[in-house]
Amino acid sequence: MSKEDYVPQPVVDISPPKWHLAHTTWFFETFVLRPGKKKYRTFNPSYGYLFNSYYETVGERVLRPDRGNITRPGVDEIFEYRNYVDKEMLEYLQSLDETELQNVLDVINLGLQHEQQHQELLFTDLKYILGHNPLFPAYLDSSLQPEKPGSFPGPLTYSEIPEGLYEIGFDGDGFCFDNEKGQHKIFLHAFEVADRLITNGEYLEFMESGGYRNFRYWLSEGWDWVNQQRNKCPLYWIQRDGKWYHYTLHGLLPVDMNEPLTHVNFYEADAFAAWRGKRLLTEFEWEIACQHLSPVIPPQANLLNTNFLAPVGGEGFHFFGDVWEWTNSAYLPYPYYSKAKGAIGEYNGKFMINQMVLKGGSCVTSKDHIRITYRNFFHPHLKWQFSGIRLANTIM
Amino acid sequence: MSKEDYVPQPVVDISPPKWHLAHTTWFFETFVLRPGKKKYRTFNPSYGYLFNSYYETVGERVLRPDRGNITRPGVDEIFEYRNYVDKEMLEYLQSLDETELQNVLDVINLGLQHEQQHQELLFTDLKYILGHNPLFPAYLDSSLQPEKPGSFPGPLTYSEIPEGLYEIGFDGDGFCFDNEKGQHKIFLHAFEVADRLITNGEYLEFMESGGYRNFRYWLSEGWDWVNQQRNKCPLYWIQRDGKWYHYTLHGLLPVDMNEPLTHVNFYEADAFAAWRGKRLLTEFEWEIACQHLSPVIPPQANLLNTNFLAPVGGEGFHFFGDVWEWTNSAYLPYPYYSKAKGAIGEYNGKFMINQMVLKGGSCVTSKDHIRITYRNFFHPHLKWQFSGIRLANTIM
Amino acid sequence: MSKEDYVPQPVVDISPPKWHLAHTTWFFETFVLRPGKKKYRTFNPSYGYLFNSYYETVGERVLRPDRGNITRPGVDEIFEYRNYVDKEMLEYLQSLDETELQNVLDVINLGLQHEQQHQELLFTDLKYILGHNPLFPAYLDSSLQPEKPGSFPGPLTYSEIPEGLYEIGFDGDGFCFDNEKGQHKIFLHAFEVADRLITNGEYLEFMESGGYRNFRYWLSEGWDWVNQQRNKCPLYWIQRDGKWYHYTLHGLLPVDMNEPLTHVNFYEADAFAAWRGKRLLTEFEWEIACQHLSPVIPPQANLLNTNFLAPVGGEGFHFFGDVWEWTNSAYLPYPYYSKAKGAIGEYNGKFMINQMVLKGGSCVTSKDHIRITYRNFFHPHLKWQFSGIRLANTIM
Amino acid sequence: MSKEDYVPQPVVDISPPKWHLAHTTWFFETFVLRPGKKKYRTFNPSYGYLFNSYYETVGERVLRPDRGNITRPGVDEIFEYRNYVDKEMLEYLQSLDETELQNVLDVINLGLQHEQQHQELLFTDLKYILGHNPLFPAYLDSSLQPEKPGSFPGPLTYSEIPEGLYEIGFDGDGFCFDNEKGQHKIFLHAFEVADRLITNGEYLEFMESGGYRNFRYWLSEGWDWVNQQRNKCPLYWIQRDGKWYHYTLHGLLPVDMNEPLTHVNFYEADAFAAWRGKRLLTEFEWEIACQHLSPVIPPQANLLNTNFLAPVGGEGFHFFGDVWEWTNSAYLPYPYYSKAKGAIGEYNGKFMINQMVLKGGSCVTSKDHIRITYRNFFHPHLKWQFSGIRLANTIM
Repeated sequence: MSKEDYVPQPVVDISPPKWHLAHTTWFFETFVLRPGKKKYRTFNPSYGYLFNSYYETVGERVLRPDRGNITRPGVDEIFEYRNYVDKEMLEYLQSLDETELQNVLDVINLGLQHEQQHQELLFTDLKYILGHNPLFPAYLDSSLQPEKPGSFPGPLTYSEIPEGLYEIGFDGDGFCFDNEKGQHKIFLHAFEVADRLITNGEYLEFMESGGYRNFRYWLSEGWDWVNQQRNKCPLYWIQRDGKWYHYTLHGLLPVDMNEPLTHVNFYEADAFAAWRGKRLLTEFEWEIACQHLSPVIPPQANLLNTNFLAPVGGEGFHFFGDVWEWTNSAYLPYPYYSKAKGAIGEYNGKFMINQMVLKGGSCVTSKDHIRITYRNFFHPHLKWQFSGIRLANTIM
Repeated sequence: MSKEDYVPQPVVDISPPKWHLAHTTWFFETFVLRPGKKKYRTFNPSYGYLFNSYYETVGERVLRPDRGNITRPGVDEIFEYRNYVDKEMLEYLQSLDETELQNVLDVINLGLQHEQQHQELLFTDLKYILGHNPLFPAYLDSSLQPEKPGSFPGPLTYSEIPEGLYEIGFDGDGFCFDNEKGQHKIFLHAFEVADRLITNGEYLEFMESGGYRNFRYWLSEGWDWVNQQRNKCPLYWIQRDGKWYHYTLHGLLPVDMNEPLTHVNFYEADAFAAWRGKRLLTEFEWEIACQHLSPVIPPQANLLNTNFLAPVGGEGFHFFGDVWEWTNSAYLPYPYYSKAKGAIGEYNGKFMINQMVLKGGSCVTSKDHIRITYRNFFHPHLKWQFSGIRLANTIM
Repeated sequence: MSKEDYVPQPVVDISPPKWHLAHTTWFFETFVLRPGKKKYRTFNPSYGYLFNSYYETVGERVLRPDRGNITRPGVDEIFEYRNYVDKEMLEYLQSLDETELQNVLDVINLGLQHEQQHQELLFTDLKYILGHNPLFPAYLDSSLQPEKPGSFPGPLTYSEIPEGLYEIGFDGDGFCFDNEKGQHKIFLHAFEVADRLITNGEYLEFMESGGYRNFRYWLSEGWDWVNQQRNKCPLYWIQRDGKWYHYTLHGLLPVDMNEPLTHVNFYEADAFAAWRGKRLLTEFEWEIACQHLSPVIPPQANLLNTNFLAPVGGEGFHFFGDVWEWTNSAYLPYPYYSKAKGAIGEYNGKFMINQMVLKGGSCVTSKDHIRITYRNFFHPHLKWQFSGIRLANTIM
Repeated sequence: MSKEDYVPQPVVDISPPKWHLAHTTWFFETFVLRPGKKKYRTFNPSYGYLFNSYYETVGERVLRPDRGNITRPGVDEIFEYRNYVDKEMLEYLQSLDETELQNVLDVINLGLQHEQQHQELLFTDLKYILGHNPLFPAYLDSSLQPEKPGSFPGPLTYSEIPEGLYEIGFDGDGFCFDNEKGQHKIFLHAFEVADRLITNGEYLEFMESGGYRNFRYWLSEGWDWVNQQRNKCPLYWIQRDGKWYHYTLHGLLPVDMNEPLTHVNFYEADAFAAWRGKRLLTEFEWEIACQHLSPVIPPQANLLNTNFLAPVGGEGFHFFGDVWEWTNSAYLPYPYYSKAKGAIGEYNGKFMINQMVLKGGSCVTSKDHIRITYRNFFHPHLKWQFSGIRLANTIM
């Protein structure tokens, strides 16, 4: 990465890498050091204005679409900021006795989880920045790209999940976000779940059979979206001389038809399912199917630790890694949901409208960040995350 | 109504009254007469282009934002069109034997239900057109306005609905829309439901206590919406000399603080609930609460047949009439939902994204149109329907 | 015309016919009766808000894009308003002695000139409303359409105007607008002026030779405009089975290739001239050429009095009627220009930016409204006026 | 400057500094080396796509609003590109005999003039980038700021220019742009020209007397512009505790009320003149007044060579430097204007619509770039250039 790569914000949803770095640092300064550490000297008081993302509670902020126009502080100063806050955090933590430590552990843990989320965004946002450069510069040496699954994973098969009264939501000891809390019961009717993700080749069939030209498969707002698009294919796909390529973090490569599809939005996932005569899972069905079929993260799950930084696919029925799976559930509060007090209460709850839930984590999600109850969410038109499709079937 | 009132489309969501009249007529011509009646002569072939609403299956159409620019055919010709289609329909129905009649009853019934929906929209759209005219012309003689409930309905009380496994969806003999079909089980945790709608006076308290100025009560997109608004109050409210008035179909009248609040959108309903420390019901909770507490439409329900054309409120715990009640449920398919074949399949399913469910019908809904399983839906920012608030409470 | 035709405002530049009627009436009420007539009773105080066009001096007004949403007062009331103001004006004028009359003549004359401008707009705006209805309803019986010129007017010839110091601007006794005042000298270098307007057939050559696909002919903002257009042809042209038709006030008719071209904007006029290796005249060249070659309006000039309501063309070198001629002059003040005091001062001066001057009047301009010094002006992208092309040549 | 400063494009009119550097280099590669130098090896073929500004003749290009999102090539590679092209240019020039040299001198000269224009834009664009950073980082050490004029320059006086027939346009031996060519005669009526630029203090009077709140001073589109602005003051002005500061390349400094005003747009210049009961000059009046009063660039002119990088003002009646002076002339072709063949013909002519002419050069214009006949041009709403006001008076 060059210093210039840290700067731009090509569309409003993408933040500059520099901003991610400073913002995660600002989180610790604002929510841990400033309220807790005695005589803490704020690194630079104007950083609060620059690097607050959306916390109305903690004051004014640079409006989201302007993040790419801030050239100072530079990358070097931001790393300095980071080092300063790291050092102060260590000093602070060492100064606490056991009781004091217990009092701040929650917010520190939240800061770490928050940082893992931004680490993931660093990859997806940088991919967007480099992938929209006409030179298609690779982030990684293309010789480092992951081995291909090699062969077609075979036709989709489905497993049945019986109807029943199930438990949804987090109920363990570790960390979870507030939106997973309040374990509660849900009744599910029987359904079938596909044993693997949809591949690039399967999606290409949809494209080639006119999927983007037939309104019947699309939600009304999805069809409007299609008609506004110039490129009717997954994000980063490009056709040259009749052959499909896609931009990856290893550069522009031919699309491997046996790999899991990625970079489709909810409208595309839903239309693909309709074209196949299937549907997407709800978030509840996904969670229960996962409990039945893949309750723990298997070692082969393609999460950030594999270092592939691209979906790979391959053997084995599991629900974690490769791509986030779109569900047909709107992001809404669980029955016992309640917002935390203060700025932390703005973390999740205020986004519970007009977004759809995704499950399972992707090839750039930290392994110790994801879990079965994890609820990711994006607007239905967005496709710059590693997001793909798993099909389901109603049992009538 | 003057002929000029039939023409404009002040914003994209409002259709010209003239268009509603022609469109409901076109429905019968397109889906009953043309496919069924022998030697049927289409009244005017270009009407298909003019008065198709959103059915992609039946061809090109005038784009929605242009409906208000079509001055021909005029109102007289549209009533002529109506008479022509009515006459042809009667002739056609009389020509059918019992079996043939059975085959077309479904689509005719759908046409009638469709017409009831547009009758409701005629009132809300006309209210919008006249209510945005600086002269505030009344649709009805203001001496005809409904009697006021007179006094404050008393503080809110709540009824508890126990947890349990319940049935949701339509399972009777009569008509229902496809989106209500596929009765299925749902598990609900115990909750409390308010015994009446929120009043204008209660909402004014929210306004006066700074409800529109405090981000804490608002969803993030709701807060964005607030900040784009010039008028921070229900639609049609206007303040003069410190006193609140609102435009009604009987003209500009002082706001009666004891009447049910109407013309708020989902963001406002949700923020109001947050301010009160309560929440909205889900559509499932609403349906089950209604089954428990008010399973049939009571005679005093203020639906279209009362002819009030405005919310009135008053005695008695019931869920029907006055205003549509926003729920905190996204409009999504039921587990066994499947779209009908052909154009009819576009009726509901393709709108199942980014909209919220409303229940119960309003003062301009036909009494034989509404039922307990009826699912209305609008985008969260819209407030030109008669839409209000019922609160709920989680039992922890 | 039906009453419904009076209502819509399909785009911001088009006003509803009803609005034109009320606005010209309001002008007399506001600028003559209310300041002058004793005990004058305003017809309806809210009309000021409704029918003020752009005079900031006389208070708040309905914003321009909302004019089409006002259904009340209706057409009947507006004619009533008109009759009321007419009657009051007559009574007022009869009550004045000679001196008093002199004092109000200027504003009355301005009111009449203003009304002639809106009479012209009534035709162009109604043409827009009916010409964008997919039924293409005729305003006039098509059997009434003007006789065609019959044959090709012959190749363009040019007349030379010698260099010299000339006088520009109004210097007579009658009425003129403030923007024509302050006669002043201008030096012109020698140039040639075409003896007639460009025909439809000549413009079709430009179209067929790829004129809309070659950036070389276009101003940069003109080229941007081209690339945003779906239809690359004059306004109201439509191609069916390889043949060109255009909507006229007599309905949809085949394009007569020998008639003068109309409904092109400045960008198109300028690009056409570039394609022919010619240029447009400046407004000064036009005025001086007209002084030399056609100083008075000839009897055959196709202005409103011919009742053709469409360009016709035909014999004789003259500069008046058929279509407004785009010049390559920006609409700017003459050297001695000064704004009148009060609201009347807003008539012209405040529009002197970003618009181009047109000269000569069109087939819907009143004969006693147009004159050699008359300066019409529109933004370069607009084409709903009867506007066409006359070419010129620099003499090097 | 940090490398990050080279990247952003905060609004469409501002280009990234990096882009300016590469674009001026690309100009020489594209218009000199590739057509002329034998066996020239293009540095990187994709740079043509990246660094073409608006020349349609030489192929596709990155759309203007996306320039800020291109992080590769980086600043280092662009300097490498520059060095490569410099070296090749020298080699090429040394290889030419006298005749060959003559053939390429024009385009090389154009390339150098082009580069001077972009050098000026580098300052104004960088000022915009840094001046919109909430930290207001200085480009230069604030101790290096120019000495202030110290005292009020005294009340405005005016010089009279007599009426007459004058020559306009370039007629010398050196370089000029095509838009200055074709010397021609123009007749001017007598007028008066102010002896100096308007100061910050004089403009503040306009602001404090309600200039931004009174429509009477404004062109109609200027008034619309005012009503869309949050900040009603020159660009970079900011008020803190009742005192005015402005961002300069030396950082945020108190506004010196005796310095020439800068960073106003045409609407503001025109409104200020109207408020003072004066007007702006036309470009022709400016040129003739300058011929009379200040025909050569005086040594004290504050152009780029003074290194002040800010307007200073001070003694002496002259027309060059400090700020570009808005004229009330639209940017249109001179009578004998003709476009050059090929890409070079796109340099000026295609922008001759909707822009206003500015004269005289600013504190960041090269001294050997400016001349009396130089015609700069910008849209009337733009104010990021160093642009100010000189008043004039008609002699009636």
